[in-house]
Amino acid sequence: PSVEVKTALVSVFDKAGLEDLGKFLASKGVHILSTGGTAAKLRDLGCTVQDVADYTGSPEILDGRVKTLHPKVHGGLLAARGNAGHEAEMEKHSIRKIDLVVVNLYPFQEAVAKGGDFATCIENIDIGGPAMIRASAKNNAAVTILTSPGQYGKFMQEVSDNAGCTTFAFRKNMAAAAYALTSSYDSAVSAWMAGEAARLRNFRDERSKDVTEPPAKKTITFDLQMPLKYGCNPHQLPAGLCAVAGGKLPFEVVNGTPGYINLLDAINAWQLVHELAQATGLPAAASFKHVSPAGAAIGLPLSDEEKIVYEVKDKELTDVAAAYVRARNADPMCSFGDFVAISHEVDVATAMILKIEVSDGIIAPSFRPEALETLKAKKGGKFIVLKADAGFKYSDLEYRMVGGVGFMQKRNDAIFDASKLSEVVTSSKTIPDKAQKDLILASIAIKYTQSNSVGYSKNGMMVGVGAGQQSRVDCVKLAGRKVATWWLRFHPKVKGLPFKDGVKRQDRVNARVRYIEGDMEEAERGEWLKNFDAPPEPLSAEEKSSFLKGLDDVAISSDAFFPFRDSIDHATRLGVKFVAQPGGSVADKEACAFCLDALKNVTTPLQVIDACNTYGMTMAFTQLRLFHH
Amino acid sequence: PSVEVKTALVSVFDKAGLEDLGKFLASKGVHILSTGGTAAKLRDLGCTVQDVADYTGSPEILDGRVKTLHPKVHGGLLAARGNAGHEAEMEKHSIRKIDLVVVNLYPFQEAVAKGGDFATCIENIDIGGPAMIRASAKNNAAVTILTSPGQYGKFMQEVSDNAGCTTFAFRKNMAAAAYALTSSYDSAVSAWMAGEAARLRNFRDERSKDVTEPPAKKTITFDLQMPLKYGCNPHQLPAGLCAVAGGKLPFEVVNGTPGYINLLDAINAWQLVHELAQATGLPAAASFKHVSPAGAAIGLPLSDEEKIVYEVKDKELTDVAAAYVRARNADPMCSFGDFVAISHEVDVATAMILKIEVSDGIIAPSFRPEALETLKAKKGGKFIVLKADAGFKYSDLEYRMVGGVGFMQKRNDAIFDASKLSEVVTSSKTIPDKAQKDLILASIAIKYTQSNSVGYSKNGMMVGVGAGQQSRVDCVKLAGRKVATWWLRFHPKVKGLPFKDGVKRQDRVNARVRYIEGDMEEAERGEWLKNFDAPPEPLSAEEKSSFLKGLDDVAISSDAFFPFRDSIDHATRLGVKFVAQPGGSVADKEACAFCLDALKNVTTPLQVIDACNTYGMTMAFTQLRLFHH
Repeated sequence: PSVEVKTALVSVFDKAGLEDLGKFLASKGVHILSTGGTAAKLRDLGCTVQDVADYTGSPEILDGRVKTLHPKVHGGLLAARGNAGHEAEMEKHSIRKIDLVVVNLYPFQEAVAKGGDFATCIENIDIGGPAMIRASAKNNAAVTILTSPGQYGKFMQEVSDNAGCTTFAFRKNMAAAAYALTSSYDSAVSAWMAGEAARLRNFRDERSKDVTEPPAKKTITFDLQMPLKYGCNPHQLPAGLCAVAGGKLPFEVVNGTPGYINLLDAINAWQLVHELAQATGLPAAASFKHVSPAGAAIGLPLSDEEKIVYEVKDKELTDVAAAYVRARNADPMCSFGDFVAISHEVDVATAMILKIEVSDGIIAPSFRPEALETLKAKKGGKFIVLKADAGFKYSDLEYRMVGGVGFMQKRNDAIFDASKLSEVVTSSKTIPDKAQKDLILASIAIKYTQSNSVGYSKNGMMVGVGAGQQSRVDCVKLAGRKVATWWLRFHPKVKGLPFKDGVKRQDRVNARVRYIEGDMEEAERGEWLKNFDAPPEPLSAEEKSSFLKGLDDVAISSDAFFPFRDSIDHATRLGVKFVAQPGGSVADKEACAFCLDALKNVTTPLQVIDACNTYGMTMAFTQLRLFHH
Repeated sequence: PSVEVKTALVSVFDKAGLEDLGKFLASKGVHILSTGGTAAKLRDLGCTVQDVADYTGSPEILDGRVKTLHPKVHGGLLAARGNAGHEAEMEKHSIRKIDLVVVNLYPFQEAVAKGGDFATCIENIDIGGPAMIRASAKNNAAVTILTSPGQYGKFMQEVSDNAGCTTFAFRKNMAAAAYALTSSYDSAVSAWMAGEAARLRNFRDERSKDVTEPPAKKTITFDLQMPLKYGCNPHQLPAGLCAVAGGKLPFEVVNGTPGYINLLDAINAWQLVHELAQATGLPAAASFKHVSPAGAAIGLPLSDEEKIVYEVKDKELTDVAAAYVRARNADPMCSFGDFVAISHEVDVATAMILKIEVSDGIIAPSFRPEALETLKAKKGGKFIVLKADAGFKYSDLEYRMVGGVGFMQKRNDAIFDASKLSEVVTSSKTIPDKAQKDLILASIAIKYTQSNSVGYSKNGMMVGVGAGQQSRVDCVKLAGRKVATWWLRFHPKVKGLPFKDGVKRQDRVNARVRYIEGDMEEAERGEWLKNFDAPPEPLSAEEKSSFLKGLDDVAISSDAFFPFRDSIDHATRLGVKFVAQPGGSVADKEACAFCLDALKNVTTPLQVIDACNTYGMTMAFTQLRLFHH
């Protein structure tokens, strides 16, 4: 049923839009109940205004803590129109029917964000406002509730379109928004009051018995910042990106329109490079595809040979650019169309190299103006550029919904630095500085790789990432194939492939990889041969195997412990000399009951340590499992 | 500061625990303000009770909609103790200081759950209660707020331990819980009022322009049902499992203590088998490891040869058991320590086979009593048994937090059935019923596999799942290696391996796989030989290659379109004859800007269709991308 707007109650902290709304209400001859500053302003606009205290006959008390919490106000909001009993009581107690309520709330979250003390924050918890909002919204059969200036325009349109009235559909929509607001407001108050973050922080990195119990009931407010075209797939919409902590995102969109998977890549890649730069003191870069790194690296200088193989011989190479080149060249076939993260300011040298690669976007904390212009021009202006907030404070607990279940866990905020490599369990005890950096790099990279995972690194770059496998040795082999392909790109026959002039960069990259893999069907081989002036001589299995023997000083890190020696036996063929793994700690064994079963009759850790000793490897137990899902 | 409890306001809908609390308050001589049924009950218990209407001098009006919304009540809750102005106003208006508030709310969610009509649900939205709860919680410097019977015991202990007083810490904890309650209450009201589910449901499976905008602000209540030992890793705690929709989980724990990753596996595996059984009309099973299927299958009967190779020759095989055997035998080395899902009731035949496998747990809608006893006895009584709720209603929108960002998207509720295979784009148009089932199976399996993914299937079972790769052809090859290993288990030399007596089942499984792979280092080979009476003759590359030529009628499904013919060229070596892929639709191309770049100068779909035609394959474009992250 349509309801004519005759009486309104207006009490707003945020006065935005009040002028237009006030004039509109004045023009419609609406009788207004109001308080304090709002009343004064509305009178100036020509409205008929009655003070709430005058209407209730009760004064404002307790420094304004109690103004509207009165039966004459709430009776006017809650009474059922047309109900004989209610109508009689309204008559008897001189209660006015209130048709419109315009209220917004004390800025509690802003008070907390500004670092207000306990008393200030408490004073900013609104009590009277939410009570009026909730009462009006309940009685949406008759009452319209407006809770933000953004709704005023829609309201005026609604009343103009409906001869001074509001429709039920409109009131119901406004009521749903009203309860969403009070819910998110109280969610913020509860979180602040629980002081949860502070209490949890004490237990970081420790499996303490004193750890805080998870909260029995937790409301998370997802505050939409950016609708997305769709979610993981085109048929999954609506979709959007929301702020979940303190009302802001950890980045800004500077250019382009990121998609759902772009953003999953960006967020994971950014955390990876940020932690890696902090742990090593060097610029870091990552190249992501499908929420795992195809490559990641730190900014160590490139040798002349590396410059040739990575096709950057004539480029300016800053340390940031070197990190990017190394990240992109672990597996350049997979990195095609990647999302890039850089820990430091993106300089012109880096932008000039990135410019010619096929890539979807980048996240970094800042950009040199010329570098930014170069990047914005990529992909016909559609290259995605995100500016990361390096000081962002992550919430301690992460929540997610999967198949009707809510999963809650503490964020994986473990820091992987050199201290995690102190428990060396092999006869060889030495981890040189270079290898230490490689192990830190590989460990942080797999922290952000879908599990199970292992990663190989050398020269400050990942040279093989094995993601998403269901057995450990499969990860070792999968990533090992990538390592072999990477290393064989340095083979003289690969470097000397006689490309025709005009073959494009990515086509050269792919053609080299296929030459190394060698498993081409006839049709593919025909296409492949078009890249060359003359058919290249094949690279034989013996040549590959012999060249692989020259690979040395490779590091490997695993996200969970190696249950058997097979992984080490395989890794040695790929030049591995340094190993980081959580180790078969009691905690790990508890974590993984099926592993315990497997270990029942074997002394597995010893088996693995023996294998390392046989091959002269140095292995550290990190005591830190790094599953990622 | 400690506050003595002298005056209490008690108004509860749920009377549980009131008797003990009332007696306690009576024994302490507390003056009680109360209403209606609560007042009567407390008087019976010997309490000094004053009716709120008597205290305020205002009658209850509007059928109880307005009882406590009065300055004398809210002044008593909100006044700052010791503030001279406030104290003077209290004196003047005869306002009592209220030290304790005991309130619980009208059961709104229960009213909705019971299917109440609009008016009934509206009537169950509590207004006065939340106003008192919020006011008391704000004034936690002086007031204790109890919102559930579960807190009464703690309160009585607190007062007994503190000479009739409450401490600040206690009041603050209760206040945080109070706001969490009001927040979650309003979140439920908002969701119901928005009628969101109903509106969204209209747009299922369609990329409609009319799709509802994502809500600007959404609070999700995570209602803890089960604290977990830890999250993804031992250092991530607290952790827990929460109800997110309608206050319940989609399963019950019947036995064991599931961990975080067990539950991720269970939830994904359950959705897979449930959808697969619905699409095919046959029992379905899945074997999960690290949130991707190692195997999945439907209950087609096994041939005698399959029974031998899967070592179930002498077992009773119901169709449910057949589904399980097929799911477990795609990649039995990976399935070691898996989580199992079964779409139908688990019978004794299935339990007897599962009994001897190393496995972590199972989810199914029901269990024969004897089967349940068998399963519960596994792993020394620790085998996890979950009973799935087959009628669970999933919420339309899924939210998750990743690295400080909230991601929201519609649930992937697309149904993959035979209708998705109608757009056949190759010269060969025929997809026999058996192949159709295999394509449906493979497509639903990859819907729940970490992306990028492709899956091969044959005889109603997955025979190779390639998960988590960063390029499409890598998925095809990775899964292809699993297909080859699976098929070679049927080679006479593998079937005839001369195992010693007493070699354990899983050791036989692993030994066969390693024999087929053949890439053993010396140390491993030494261990491996201990399984046999005499050293087995090796399986040569030529023998393998020749035996693989006998593999035929394999189906393959891909979670996104094939950009180049290389995947098809590779798949043909593994006997693939049927292909399902989304196809290079406009939507897909938009979804994947880098693919567009890649396609700029090539007529790729034609290239892929040509390849299929060359090999006599039948390919359907499903128009349904199935990325999963």
